[in-house]
Amino acid sequence: MKIVFVGAGNLATQLGKAFKRTTHEVVQVYSRTQHSAAELASLLKCTYTTSLQEVTTEADLYVIAVKDAVMCEVIRQVCPHRSDKVFLHTAGSMPLSVFNTYAKHYGVFYPLQTFSKQKDLDFKQIPCFIEANDAIAKEVICNVANILSNTVYELSSAQRKYLHLAAVYACNFTNHLYDLSSEILSRNHIPFNVMLPLIDETTKKVHFCSPHDAQTGPAIRFDQNVIDAQLALLSEEPALQNIYRVLSDSIHEHFNVK
Amino acid sequence: MKIVFVGAGNLATQLGKAFKRTTHEVVQVYSRTQHSAAELASLLKCTYTTSLQEVTTEADLYVIAVKDAVMCEVIRQVCPHRSDKVFLHTAGSMPLSVFNTYAKHYGVFYPLQTFSKQKDLDFKQIPCFIEANDAIAKEVICNVANILSNTVYELSSAQRKYLHLAAVYACNFTNHLYDLSSEILSRNHIPFNVMLPLIDETTKKVHFCSPHDAQTGPAIRFDQNVIDAQLALLSEEPALQNIYRVLSDSIHEHFNVK
Repeated sequence: MKIVFVGAGNLATQLGKAFKRTTHEVVQVYSRTQHSAAELASLLKCTYTTSLQEVTTEADLYVIAVKDAVMCEVIRQVCPHRSDKVFLHTAGSMPLSVFNTYAKHYGVFYPLQTFSKQKDLDFKQIPCFIEANDAIAKEVICNVANILSNTVYELSSAQRKYLHLAAVYACNFTNHLYDLSSEILSRNHIPFNVMLPLIDETTKKVHFCSPHDAQTGPAIRFDQNVIDAQLALLSEEPALQNIYRVLSDSIHEHFNVK
Repeated sequence: MKIVFVGAGNLATQLGKAFKRTTHEVVQVYSRTQHSAAELASLLKCTYTTSLQEVTTEADLYVIAVKDAVMCEVIRQVCPHRSDKVFLHTAGSMPLSVFNTYAKHYGVFYPLQTFSKQKDLDFKQIPCFIEANDAIAKEVICNVANILSNTVYELSSAQRKYLHLAAVYACNFTNHLYDLSSEILSRNHIPFNVMLPLIDETTKKVHFCSPHDAQTGPAIRFDQNVIDAQLALLSEEPALQNIYRVLSDSIHEHFNVK
Protein backbone atom coordinates (compact mmCIF):
# COMPACT_ATOMS: atom_id res chain seq x y z
CA MET A 1 0.00 0.00 0.00
CA LYS A 2 1.10 3.56 -0.71
CA ILE A 3 0.76 5.83 2.30
CA VAL A 4 0.80 9.63 2.68
CA PHE A 5 1.57 11.30 5.99
CA VAL A 6 -0.22 14.57 6.57
CA GLY A 7 1.69 15.88 9.59
CA ALA A 8 5.31 15.34 10.64
CA GLY A 9 5.28 15.68 14.43
CA ASN A 10 6.42 13.21 17.10
CA LEU A 11 3.69 10.65 16.45
CA ALA A 12 3.96 10.91 12.64
CA THR A 13 7.73 10.45 12.86
CA GLN A 14 7.54 7.28 14.95
CA LEU A 15 4.62 5.88 12.98
CA GLY A 16 6.43 6.62 9.72
CA LYS A 17 9.52 4.79 10.97
CA ALA A 18 7.37 1.84 12.00
CA PHE A 19 5.79 1.71 8.51
CA LYS A 20 9.25 1.77 7.00
CA ARG A 21 9.93 -1.61 8.60
CA THR A 22 6.87 -3.11 6.82
CA THR A 23 6.13 -3.81 3.17
CA HIS A 24 3.97 -0.69 2.99
CA GLU A 25 5.52 2.37 1.42
CA VAL A 26 5.28 5.95 2.65
CA VAL A 27 5.33 7.95 -0.60
CA GLN A 28 4.93 11.53 0.64
CA VAL A 29 5.02 13.68 3.76
CA TYR A 30 3.15 16.93 4.21
CA SER A 31 3.96 19.43 6.93
CA ARG A 32 3.15 23.12 7.24
CA THR A 33 6.80 23.75 8.07
CA GLN A 34 9.51 23.05 5.52
CA HIS A 35 11.99 21.83 8.12
CA SER A 36 9.68 19.16 9.61
CA ALA A 37 8.49 18.01 6.18
CA ALA A 38 12.03 17.67 4.83
CA GLU A 39 13.29 15.98 7.99
CA LEU A 40 10.67 13.23 8.02
CA ALA A 41 10.79 12.77 4.24
CA SER A 42 14.53 12.27 4.48
CA LEU A 43 14.08 9.63 7.19
CA LEU A 44 11.43 7.82 5.17
CA LYS A 45 13.20 8.36 1.82
CA CYS A 46 10.15 9.90 0.14
CA THR A 47 9.03 13.23 -1.26
CA TYR A 48 7.51 16.05 0.75
CA THR A 49 5.37 19.14 0.35
CA THR A 50 4.33 22.09 2.49
CA SER A 51 1.17 22.69 0.45
CA LEU A 52 -2.01 20.71 1.07
CA GLN A 53 -2.92 21.28 -2.60
CA GLU A 54 0.17 19.32 -3.61
CA VAL A 55 -0.62 16.23 -1.56
CA THR A 56 -0.60 13.39 -4.07
CA THR A 57 -3.87 11.77 -5.18
CA GLU A 58 -2.00 8.54 -5.97
CA ALA A 59 -1.87 6.91 -2.52
CA ASP A 60 -4.09 4.25 -0.92
CA LEU A 61 -4.06 5.43 2.68
CA TYR A 62 -3.81 8.96 4.11
CA VAL A 63 -2.65 9.30 7.71
CA ILE A 64 -3.79 12.61 9.18
CA ALA A 65 -1.51 13.26 12.17
CA VAL A 66 -1.83 16.97 12.86
CA LYS A 67 -2.75 19.01 15.95
CA ASP A 68 -6.42 18.67 16.91
CA ALA A 69 -6.86 22.41 16.48
CA VAL A 70 -6.19 22.28 12.72
CA MET A 71 -7.46 18.78 11.95
CA CYS A 72 -10.93 19.79 10.71
CA GLU A 73 -9.47 22.29 8.29
CA VAL A 74 -6.84 19.82 7.02
CA ILE A 75 -9.49 17.13 6.47
CA ARG A 76 -11.72 19.61 4.65
CA GLN A 77 -8.87 20.42 2.27
CA VAL A 78 -7.42 16.94 1.75
CA CYS A 79 -10.28 14.45 1.67
CA PRO A 80 -12.87 15.65 -0.89
CA HIS A 81 -10.62 15.31 -3.97
CA ARG A 82 -9.51 11.80 -3.01
CA SER A 83 -12.90 10.37 -2.17
CA ASP A 84 -12.22 6.73 -3.08
CA LYS A 85 -9.22 6.54 -0.74
CA VAL A 86 -9.02 5.50 2.92
CA PHE A 87 -8.27 8.16 5.56
CA LEU A 88 -7.39 7.80 9.19
CA HIS A 89 -6.50 10.17 11.96
CA THR A 90 -4.42 9.40 15.04
CA ALA A 91 -5.96 11.71 17.64
CA GLY A 92 -7.28 10.38 20.93
CA SER A 93 -9.83 13.08 21.49
CA MET A 94 -11.16 13.63 17.95
CA PRO A 95 -14.25 11.59 17.06
CA LEU A 96 -14.57 9.44 13.96
CA SER A 97 -17.25 11.85 12.77
CA VAL A 98 -14.70 14.57 12.06
CA PHE A 99 -14.46 12.98 8.58
CA ASN A 100 -18.26 13.14 7.99
CA THR A 101 -19.26 14.63 4.64
CA TYR A 102 -15.58 14.95 3.58
CA ALA A 103 -14.64 11.30 3.05
CA LYS A 104 -16.26 7.97 2.21
CA HIS A 105 -13.91 5.46 3.85
CA TYR A 106 -12.34 6.58 7.07
CA GLY A 107 -11.30 5.62 10.54
CA VAL A 108 -9.07 6.19 13.52
CA PHE A 109 -5.79 4.59 14.54
CA TYR A 110 -4.87 5.74 18.04
CA PRO A 111 -1.60 4.39 19.44
CA LEU A 112 -1.64 4.89 23.21
CA GLN A 113 1.90 6.09 23.79
CA THR A 114 3.99 9.22 24.32
CA PHE A 115 6.25 9.86 21.36
CA SER A 116 9.33 11.93 20.75
CA LYS A 117 11.05 12.34 17.41
CA GLN A 118 14.40 11.08 18.70
CA LYS A 119 13.48 8.10 20.83
CA ASP A 120 12.53 5.04 18.77
CA LEU A 121 9.99 2.65 20.25
CA ASP A 122 8.98 -0.91 19.59
CA PHE A 123 5.59 -0.27 18.00
CA LYS A 124 4.68 -3.95 18.50
CA GLN A 125 4.32 -3.28 22.24
CA ILE A 126 2.02 -0.26 21.87
CA PRO A 127 -1.73 -0.82 22.44
CA CYS A 128 -3.51 0.58 19.37
CA PHE A 129 -7.18 1.50 19.27
CA ILE A 130 -9.00 1.48 15.96
CA GLU A 131 -12.40 2.51 14.64
CA ALA A 132 -13.78 2.67 11.09
CA ASN A 133 -16.91 3.88 9.36
CA ASP A 134 -17.29 1.02 6.88
CA ALA A 135 -15.94 -2.38 5.87
CA ILE A 136 -13.43 -0.96 3.35
CA ALA A 137 -11.84 1.37 5.90
CA LYS A 138 -11.96 -1.30 8.57
CA GLU A 139 -10.09 -3.83 6.45
CA VAL A 140 -7.31 -1.41 5.57
CA ILE A 141 -6.92 -0.03 9.09
CA CYS A 142 -7.13 -3.47 10.74
CA ASN A 143 -4.50 -4.69 8.35
CA VAL A 144 -1.96 -1.94 9.04
CA ALA A 145 -2.72 -1.92 12.78
CA ASN A 146 -2.05 -5.64 13.10
CA ILE A 147 1.17 -5.36 11.11
CA LEU A 148 2.39 -2.56 13.38
CA SER A 149 1.22 -3.72 16.82
CA ASN A 150 0.62 -6.94 18.76
CA THR A 151 -2.29 -5.44 20.70
CA VAL A 152 -5.05 -3.90 18.60
CA TYR A 153 -8.46 -3.11 20.06
CA GLU A 154 -11.62 -1.74 18.49
CA LEU A 155 -12.89 1.24 20.47
CA SER A 156 -15.72 3.71 19.87
CA SER A 157 -15.11 7.47 19.71
CA ALA A 158 -17.12 7.86 22.92
CA GLN A 159 -14.81 5.51 24.81
CA ARG A 160 -11.65 6.78 23.13
CA LYS A 161 -12.08 10.30 24.47
CA TYR A 162 -12.11 8.89 28.00
CA LEU A 163 -9.08 6.74 27.19
CA HIS A 164 -7.27 9.88 26.06
CA LEU A 165 -8.36 11.70 29.21
CA ALA A 166 -7.08 8.83 31.36
CA ALA A 167 -3.76 9.01 29.47
CA VAL A 168 -3.42 12.72 30.26
CA TYR A 169 -3.59 11.85 33.98
CA ALA A 170 -1.26 8.84 33.75
CA CYS A 171 1.33 10.39 31.44
CA ASN A 172 1.23 14.17 30.95
CA PHE A 173 0.26 15.07 34.51
CA THR A 174 2.57 12.44 35.95
CA ASN A 175 5.50 13.81 33.98
CA HIS A 176 4.67 17.30 35.23
CA LEU A 177 4.85 16.01 38.80
CA TYR A 178 8.33 14.68 37.96
CA ASP A 179 9.15 18.16 36.72
CA LEU A 180 7.94 19.77 39.94
CA SER A 181 9.85 17.17 41.95
CA SER A 182 12.99 17.92 39.97
CA GLU A 183 12.56 21.65 40.64
CA ILE A 184 12.32 21.10 44.39
CA LEU A 185 15.46 18.95 44.30
CA SER A 186 17.41 21.35 42.15
CA ARG A 187 16.66 24.28 44.48
CA ASN A 188 18.15 22.16 47.26
CA HIS A 189 21.21 21.06 45.27
CA ILE A 190 20.14 17.42 45.03
CA PRO A 191 20.46 15.77 41.60
CA PHE A 192 17.20 14.45 40.07
CA ASN A 193 18.72 11.05 39.33
CA VAL A 194 18.48 10.02 43.01
CA MET A 195 14.72 10.00 42.43
CA LEU A 196 14.83 7.49 39.55
CA PRO A 197 14.78 4.22 41.55
CA LEU A 198 11.70 5.49 43.41
CA ILE A 199 10.01 6.57 40.18
CA ASP A 200 10.80 3.20 38.59
CA GLU A 201 9.45 1.25 41.55
CA THR A 202 6.25 3.34 41.67
CA THR A 203 5.68 2.36 38.05
CA LYS A 204 6.59 -1.29 38.56
CA LYS A 205 4.15 -1.63 41.45
CA VAL A 206 1.10 -0.95 39.29
CA HIS A 207 2.04 -3.90 37.07
CA PHE A 208 1.34 -6.18 40.03
CA CYS A 209 -1.41 -4.46 41.98
CA SER A 210 -3.98 -1.75 41.35
CA PRO A 211 -2.83 1.86 41.87
CA HIS A 212 -5.41 2.07 44.63
CA ASP A 213 -3.77 -0.78 46.55
CA ALA A 214 -0.30 0.60 45.82
CA GLN A 215 -0.92 4.02 47.40
CA THR A 216 1.59 5.04 50.10
CA GLY A 217 2.69 8.33 51.66
CA PRO A 218 1.61 10.88 54.28
CA ALA A 219 -1.83 11.53 52.75
CA ILE A 220 -2.98 7.90 52.93
CA ARG A 221 -1.47 7.52 56.42
CA PHE A 222 -3.51 10.62 57.38
CA ASP A 223 -0.22 11.94 58.77
CA GLN A 224 -1.38 15.50 59.37
CA ASN A 225 1.96 16.45 60.98
CA VAL A 226 3.87 15.65 57.79
CA ILE A 227 1.23 17.20 55.54
CA ASP A 228 1.24 20.47 57.51
CA ALA A 229 5.04 20.55 57.65
CA GLN A 230 5.30 19.96 53.89
CA LEU A 231 2.69 22.62 53.12
CA ALA A 232 4.74 25.00 55.28
CA LEU A 233 7.88 24.23 53.21
CA LEU A 234 5.92 25.49 50.19
CA SER A 235 4.70 28.70 51.79
CA GLU A 236 6.52 30.78 49.19
CA GLU A 237 5.33 28.64 46.28
CA PRO A 238 1.55 29.10 46.17
CA ALA A 239 1.13 27.11 42.93
CA LEU A 240 3.10 24.11 44.23
CA GLN A 241 1.32 24.39 47.56
CA ASN A 242 -2.06 24.34 45.85
CA ILE A 243 -1.15 21.20 43.89
CA TYR A 244 0.05 19.56 47.11
CA ARG A 245 -3.20 20.41 48.87
CA VAL A 246 -5.51 19.38 46.01
CA LEU A 247 -3.79 16.01 45.50
CA SER A 248 -3.51 15.25 49.24
CA ASP A 249 -7.20 16.05 49.70
CA SER A 250 -8.06 13.81 46.77
CA ILE A 251 -6.04 10.89 48.20
CA HIS A 252 -7.64 11.44 51.58
CA GLU A 253 -11.11 11.44 50.07
CA HIS A 254 -10.45 8.28 48.06
CA PHE A 255 -9.45 6.35 51.14
CA ASN A 256 -12.14 7.73 53.41
CA VAL A 257 -15.06 7.17 51.09
CA LYS A 258 -14.17 3.78 49.66
CA MET B 1 26.18 -6.05 65.44
CA LYS B 2 22.93 -6.79 67.26
CA ILE B 3 20.04 -4.74 65.96
CA VAL B 4 16.57 -4.00 67.36
CA PHE B 5 13.71 -2.89 65.13
CA VAL B 6 11.24 -0.52 66.76
CA GLY B 7 8.41 -0.59 64.21
CA ALA B 8 7.30 -3.36 61.84
CA GLY B 9 5.71 -1.55 58.92
CA ASN B 10 6.55 -1.71 55.20
CA LEU B 11 9.96 -0.03 55.51
CA ALA B 12 10.95 -1.97 58.65
CA THR B 13 9.98 -5.24 56.96
CA GLN B 14 12.11 -4.63 53.88
CA LEU B 15 15.00 -3.18 55.88
CA GLY B 16 14.86 -6.15 58.24
CA LYS B 17 14.98 -8.58 55.31
CA ALA B 18 17.95 -6.70 53.87
CA PHE B 19 19.80 -6.94 57.21
CA LYS B 20 19.08 -10.67 57.30
CA ARG B 21 21.27 -11.06 54.21
CA THR B 22 24.24 -9.43 56.03
CA THR B 23 26.35 -10.58 58.97
CA HIS B 24 24.42 -8.28 61.30
CA GLU B 25 21.74 -9.86 63.43
CA VAL B 26 18.27 -8.51 64.14
CA VAL B 27 17.61 -9.72 67.69
CA GLN B 28 14.19 -8.24 68.46
CA VAL B 29 11.22 -6.54 66.84
CA TYR B 30 8.84 -4.17 68.61
CA SER B 31 5.45 -3.23 67.23
CA ARG B 32 2.40 -1.77 68.94
CA THR B 33 0.31 -4.48 67.28
CA GLN B 34 0.88 -8.15 68.12
CA HIS B 35 0.21 -9.30 64.55
CA SER B 36 2.82 -7.02 62.91
CA ALA B 37 5.40 -7.75 65.62
CA ALA B 38 4.94 -11.52 65.33
CA GLU B 39 4.92 -11.45 61.53
CA LEU B 40 8.22 -9.57 61.15
CA ALA B 41 9.87 -11.50 64.01
CA SER B 42 8.95 -14.73 62.30
CA LEU B 43 10.49 -13.51 59.02
CA LEU B 44 13.67 -12.43 60.79
CA LYS B 45 13.73 -15.42 63.17
CA CYS B 46 14.00 -13.28 66.28
CA THR B 47 11.95 -12.42 69.36
CA TYR B 48 9.32 -9.71 69.53
CA THR B 49 7.49 -7.53 72.00
CA THR B 50 4.52 -5.15 71.96
CA SER B 51 5.77 -3.24 74.99
CA LEU B 52 8.38 -0.49 74.70
CA GLN B 53 9.46 -1.29 78.27
CA GLU B 54 10.46 -4.77 77.13
CA VAL B 55 12.72 -3.65 74.31
CA THR B 56 16.07 -5.27 75.09
CA THR B 57 18.96 -3.19 76.40
CA GLU B 58 21.43 -5.70 74.91
CA ALA B 59 21.62 -4.48 71.28
CA ASP B 60 24.16 -2.24 69.55
CA LEU B 61 21.88 -0.42 67.13
CA TYR B 62 18.22 0.57 67.49
CA VAL B 63 16.31 1.27 64.29
CA ILE B 64 13.28 3.50 64.97
CA ALA B 65 10.93 2.97 62.02
CA VAL B 66 7.55 4.15 63.27
CA LYS B 67 5.01 6.71 61.97
CA ASP B 68 6.24 10.29 62.31
CA ALA B 69 3.26 11.09 64.53
CA VAL B 70 4.42 8.74 67.32
CA MET B 71 8.19 8.94 66.78
CA CYS B 72 8.92 11.55 69.47
CA GLU B 73 7.05 9.58 72.10
CA VAL B 74 8.76 6.31 71.09
CA ILE B 75 12.20 7.94 71.23
CA ARG B 76 11.41 9.44 74.65
CA GLN B 77 10.55 5.99 75.97
CA VAL B 78 13.28 3.92 74.29
CA CYS B 79 16.47 5.98 74.21
CA PRO B 80 17.17 7.25 77.76
CA HIS B 81 17.77 3.82 79.36
CA ARG B 82 20.12 2.73 76.59
CA SER B 83 22.25 5.85 76.45
CA ASP B 84 25.52 4.25 75.29
CA LYS B 85 23.85 2.68 72.23
CA VAL B 86 23.42 4.02 68.68
CA PHE B 87 19.95 5.00 67.48
CA LEU B 88 18.71 5.85 64.04
CA HIS B 89 15.38 6.74 62.53
CA THR B 90 14.29 6.21 58.94
CA ALA B 91 11.90 9.12 58.38
CA GLY B 92 12.38 11.57 55.54
CA SER B 93 10.68 14.48 57.21
CA MET B 94 11.88 14.11 60.82
CA PRO B 95 15.04 16.07 61.67
CA LEU B 96 18.08 14.57 63.36
CA SER B 97 17.30 16.76 66.36
CA VAL B 98 14.30 14.64 67.29
CA PHE B 99 16.80 12.58 69.34
CA ASN B 100 18.15 15.66 71.20
CA THR B 101 18.35 15.21 74.99
CA TYR B 102 17.16 11.57 74.73
CA ALA B 103 20.21 9.91 73.16
CA LYS B 104 23.98 10.40 72.91
CA HIS B 105 24.81 8.72 69.59
CA TYR B 106 22.17 9.00 66.93
CA GLY B 107 21.48 9.53 63.28
CA VAL B 108 19.20 9.06 60.31
CA PHE B 109 19.14 6.39 57.63
CA TYR B 110 16.60 7.39 54.96
CA PRO B 111 16.21 4.96 52.05
CA LEU B 112 14.49 6.81 49.20
CA GLN B 113 12.04 4.17 48.05
CA THR B 114 8.40 3.08 48.32
CA PHE B 115 8.09 -0.15 50.26
CA SER B 116 5.44 -2.78 50.62
CA LYS B 117 5.64 -5.75 52.96
CA GLN B 118 5.17 -8.30 50.17
CA LYS B 119 7.36 -6.99 47.38
CA ASP B 120 11.07 -7.59 47.99
CA LEU B 121 13.51 -5.07 46.57
CA ASP B 122 17.21 -5.06 45.85
CA PHE B 123 18.34 -2.73 48.64
CA LYS B 124 21.70 -2.31 46.85
CA GLN B 125 19.93 -0.16 44.22
CA ILE B 126 18.21 2.17 46.70
CA PRO B 127 19.78 5.60 47.26
CA CYS B 128 20.21 5.98 51.05
CA PHE B 129 20.69 9.30 52.83
CA ILE B 130 22.46 9.37 56.16
CA GLU B 131 23.17 11.89 58.89
CA ALA B 132 24.72 11.49 62.34
CA ASN B 133 25.33 13.62 65.40
CA ASP B 134 28.81 12.34 66.29
CA ALA B 135 31.67 10.17 65.08
CA ILE B 136 30.43 7.05 66.91
CA ALA B 137 26.98 7.20 65.35
CA LYS B 138 28.44 8.10 61.98
CA GLU B 139 30.75 5.10 61.92
CA VAL B 140 27.98 2.65 62.78
CA ILE B 141 25.43 4.16 60.38
CA CYS B 142 27.94 4.54 57.53
CA ASN B 143 28.96 0.95 58.02
CA VAL B 144 25.44 -0.52 57.82
CA ALA B 145 24.40 1.87 55.04
CA ASN B 146 27.32 0.83 52.85
CA ILE B 147 26.66 -2.84 53.47
CA LEU B 148 23.01 -2.42 52.48
CA SER B 149 23.25 -0.01 49.52
CA ASN B 150 25.59 0.90 46.68
CA THR B 151 24.61 4.56 46.79
CA VAL B 152 24.92 6.26 50.16
CA TYR B 153 24.89 10.04 50.51
CA GLU B 154 25.30 12.30 53.51
CA LEU B 155 22.45 14.80 53.69
CA SER B 156 21.43 17.39 56.28
CA SER B 157 18.01 17.38 57.92
CA ALA B 158 17.23 20.66 56.17
CA GLN B 159 17.86 19.14 52.73
CA ARG B 160 16.24 15.81 53.61
CA LYS B 161 12.86 17.37 54.25
CA TYR B 162 12.88 18.78 50.73
CA LEU B 163 14.01 15.41 49.36
CA HIS B 164 11.04 13.82 51.08
CA LEU B 165 8.73 16.50 49.72
CA ALA B 166 10.06 15.92 46.20
CA ALA B 167 9.44 12.18 46.69
CA VAL B 168 5.80 12.83 47.62
CA TYR B 169 5.33 14.54 44.24
CA ALA B 170 7.25 11.93 42.24
CA CYS B 171 5.82 8.85 43.94
CA ASN B 172 2.72 9.31 46.11
CA PHE B 173 1.02 11.93 43.94
CA THR B 174 2.04 10.16 40.75
CA ASN B 175 0.54 6.90 41.98
CA HIS B 176 -2.66 8.76 42.84
CA LEU B 177 -2.84 10.02 39.26
CA TYR B 178 -2.55 6.38 38.14
CA ASP B 179 -5.45 5.64 40.47
CA LEU B 180 -7.57 8.44 38.98
CA SER B 181 -6.65 7.27 35.49
CA SER B 182 -7.68 3.74 36.37
CA GLU B 183 -11.03 5.00 37.68
CA ILE B 184 -11.76 6.85 34.44
CA LEU B 185 -10.91 3.72 32.45
CA SER B 186 -12.93 1.41 34.64
CA ARG B 187 -16.05 3.59 34.35
CA ASN B 188 -15.65 3.23 30.57
CA HIS B 189 -15.04 -0.53 30.65
CA ILE B 190 -11.41 -0.28 29.53
CA PRO B 191 -8.88 -2.38 31.49
CA PHE B 192 -6.10 -0.45 33.26
CA ASN B 193 -3.37 -2.66 31.78
CA VAL B 194 -3.67 -0.92 28.37
CA MET B 195 -2.17 2.10 30.14
CA LEU B 196 0.99 0.29 31.31
CA PRO B 197 3.17 0.73 28.19
CA LEU B 198 2.46 4.48 28.31
CA ILE B 199 3.21 4.65 32.04
CA ASP B 200 6.44 2.68 31.52
CA GLU B 201 7.58 4.91 28.68
CA THR B 202 6.79 8.10 30.63
CA THR B 203 9.09 6.79 33.35
CA LYS B 204 11.81 5.64 30.95
CA LYS B 205 11.93 9.05 29.26
CA VAL B 206 13.11 10.85 32.40
CA HIS B 207 16.14 8.54 32.54
CA PHE B 208 17.35 10.15 29.32
CA CYS B 209 16.11 13.72 29.45
CA SER B 210 14.82 16.09 32.11
CA PRO B 211 11.09 15.90 32.94
CA HIS B 212 10.84 19.46 31.66
CA ASP B 213 12.12 18.45 28.22
CA ALA B 214 9.98 15.29 28.24
CA GLN B 215 6.66 17.10 28.72
CA THR B 216 3.97 16.31 26.11
CA GLY B 217 0.19 16.58 25.96
CA PRO B 218 -2.58 19.12 25.36
CA ALA B 219 -1.46 21.54 28.10
CA ILE B 220 2.04 22.05 26.70
CA ARG B 221 0.66 22.27 23.14
CA PHE B 222 -1.71 25.00 24.47
CA ASP B 223 -4.44 22.94 22.78
CA GLN B 224 -7.38 24.78 24.34
CA ASN B 225 -9.90 22.76 22.30
CA VAL B 226 -8.74 19.50 23.87
CA ILE B 227 -8.43 21.03 27.34
CA ASP B 228 -11.97 22.44 27.21
CA ALA B 229 -13.38 19.19 25.84
CA GLN B 230 -11.65 17.15 28.54
CA LEU B 231 -12.83 19.50 31.30
CA ALA B 232 -16.35 19.08 29.92
CA LEU B 233 -16.04 15.27 30.17
CA LEU B 234 -15.43 15.79 33.90
CA SER B 235 -18.36 18.12 34.48
CA GLU B 236 -19.92 15.67 36.94
CA GLU B 237 -16.64 15.02 38.74
CA PRO B 238 -15.72 18.35 40.36
CA ALA B 239 -12.72 16.92 42.26
CA LEU B 240 -11.21 15.32 39.14
CA GLN B 241 -11.99 18.45 37.14
CA ASN B 242 -10.23 20.62 39.70
CA ILE B 243 -7.10 18.42 39.55
CA TYR B 244 -7.19 18.59 35.74
CA ARG B 245 -7.43 22.37 35.81
CA VAL B 246 -4.77 22.91 38.48
CA LEU B 247 -2.22 20.65 36.75
CA SER B 248 -2.93 21.99 33.25
CA ASP B 249 -2.55 25.56 34.52
CA SER B 250 0.72 24.61 36.19
CA ILE B 251 2.10 23.04 32.99
CA HIS B 252 0.99 26.07 31.03
CA GLU B 253 2.69 28.41 33.46
CA HIS B 254 5.94 26.41 33.45
CA PHE B 255 6.21 26.63 29.69
CA ASN B 256 5.17 30.26 29.40
CA VAL B 257 7.42 31.67 32.08
CA LYS B 258 10.60 29.71 31.40
